[in-house]
Amino acid sequence: MESKAPTATIARLSRYYRRLTHLEVEGVDTVSSETLGEVEGVTPSQVRKDLSLFGSFGTKGLGYPVSELKGKVASILGLDRKWKVGLIGMGNVGSALVGYKEFHKQGFEIVVTFDNDKRKIGSKRDGLVVKDVEEMEDYLKREKVDIVILAVPADQAQKVAEKVVGCGVRAILNFAPVSLKLPPKVFVRNENMAIELEALSFSLVNKKIIG
Amino acid sequence: MESKAPTATIARLSRYYRRLTHLEVEGVDTVSSETLGEVEGVTPSQVRKDLSLFGSFGTKGLGYPVSELKGKVASILGLDRKWKVGLIGMGNVGSALVGYKEFHKQGFEIVVTFDNDKRKIGSKRDGLVVKDVEEMEDYLKREKVDIVILAVPADQAQKVAEKVVGCGVRAILNFAPVSLKLPPKVFVRNENMAIELEALSFSLVNKKIIG
Repeated sequence: MESKAPTATIARLSRYYRRLTHLEVEGVDTVSSETLGEVEGVTPSQVRKDLSLFGSFGTKGLGYPVSELKGKVASILGLDRKWKVGLIGMGNVGSALVGYKEFHKQGFEIVVTFDNDKRKIGSKRDGLVVKDVEEMEDYLKREKVDIVILAVPADQAQKVAEKVVGCGVRAILNFAPVSLKLPPKVFVRNENMAIELEALSFSLVNKKIIG
Repeated sequence: MESKAPTATIARLSRYYRRLTHLEVEGVDTVSSETLGEVEGVTPSQVRKDLSLFGSFGTKGLGYPVSELKGKVASILGLDRKWKVGLIGMGNVGSALVGYKEFHKQGFEIVVTFDNDKRKIGSKRDGLVVKDVEEMEDYLKREKVDIVILAVPADQAQKVAEKVVGCGVRAILNFAPVSLKLPPKVFVRNENMAIELEALSFSLVNKKIIG
């Protein structure tokens, strides 16, 4: 069993990384824990605690050097390199993802898309030709794709995921509304866009900010 | 300032709710903390801690009554009612969201969509006619929309969000990759689909599960 890192910490690191990128563009040299946390409503002590999990950064009273910390957070999150991403399923969700510029900006390159619909196969989306899903296994074995995004219907997700894992892929981002059962060596994240709406309905009902 | 609830707790409640729905369909009467947490890798003590924040549920040694707990979690999350949702921006992301069945299943009804593109206005997507964004303010004031989903380009998000808030909307789910600056009375959640990919790249680099 591999060790665990808390979801919320990683999500906050992603946000610090965005903030640091922004500060670097603005030409800011050093940043305090206060400033780093403020946009997302994170307390300075939480910022210090999160960063301390991964090493010793910054100087007491002087803050963190922006470019250096950005580089370190990038390396913790694996954003200092390119990742080859395969996208399976070119319905509405898949079509939105292939054009989603944030992926490319963070080093996630969608290198291939697959579908099983003859009307879609061969068509071009954001510069990529949609391939026949029948070619998927050959491709994944040959091209060493790092991460697969699964945007297929719920009733096909488990079967497709097993094929993907059989090709040696170790990381899956699943948009289908089902829990995948896969070997523990495979990293799976489930993207459920209704969860954020539920956070809002919780806030509306309870008059509570979530943070 | 309104009080806060931790993001991770609310996200876990959403998952318990899904699990309970599933168990109810399967005809299961009672469930243990172990079973409730296991699909998502949550420990039994975490399940008990999460639920205890909102009241006293279940009987020691007997577990939780599935239907009753499902009803209570639904009421905590505001899922025991319908929410009127407006969707602004019918690009790739908006088009994916309007057809996203999970929203409807959880009580989030997309009742209106807007765009500023003359080629899209008047066209029908998943049974809804795309309206001219010029009509947005009149509509939002008249129809008492609960939640607005913002799927507009980054450089338009702040301006559109201010208009939406001016119409009395108290909750916004923002898909644009910018931090919105809005009055504290407005609940905002930012959906960034790259965050889950970053969780996967973190896992691949550090060989750590996030949970």
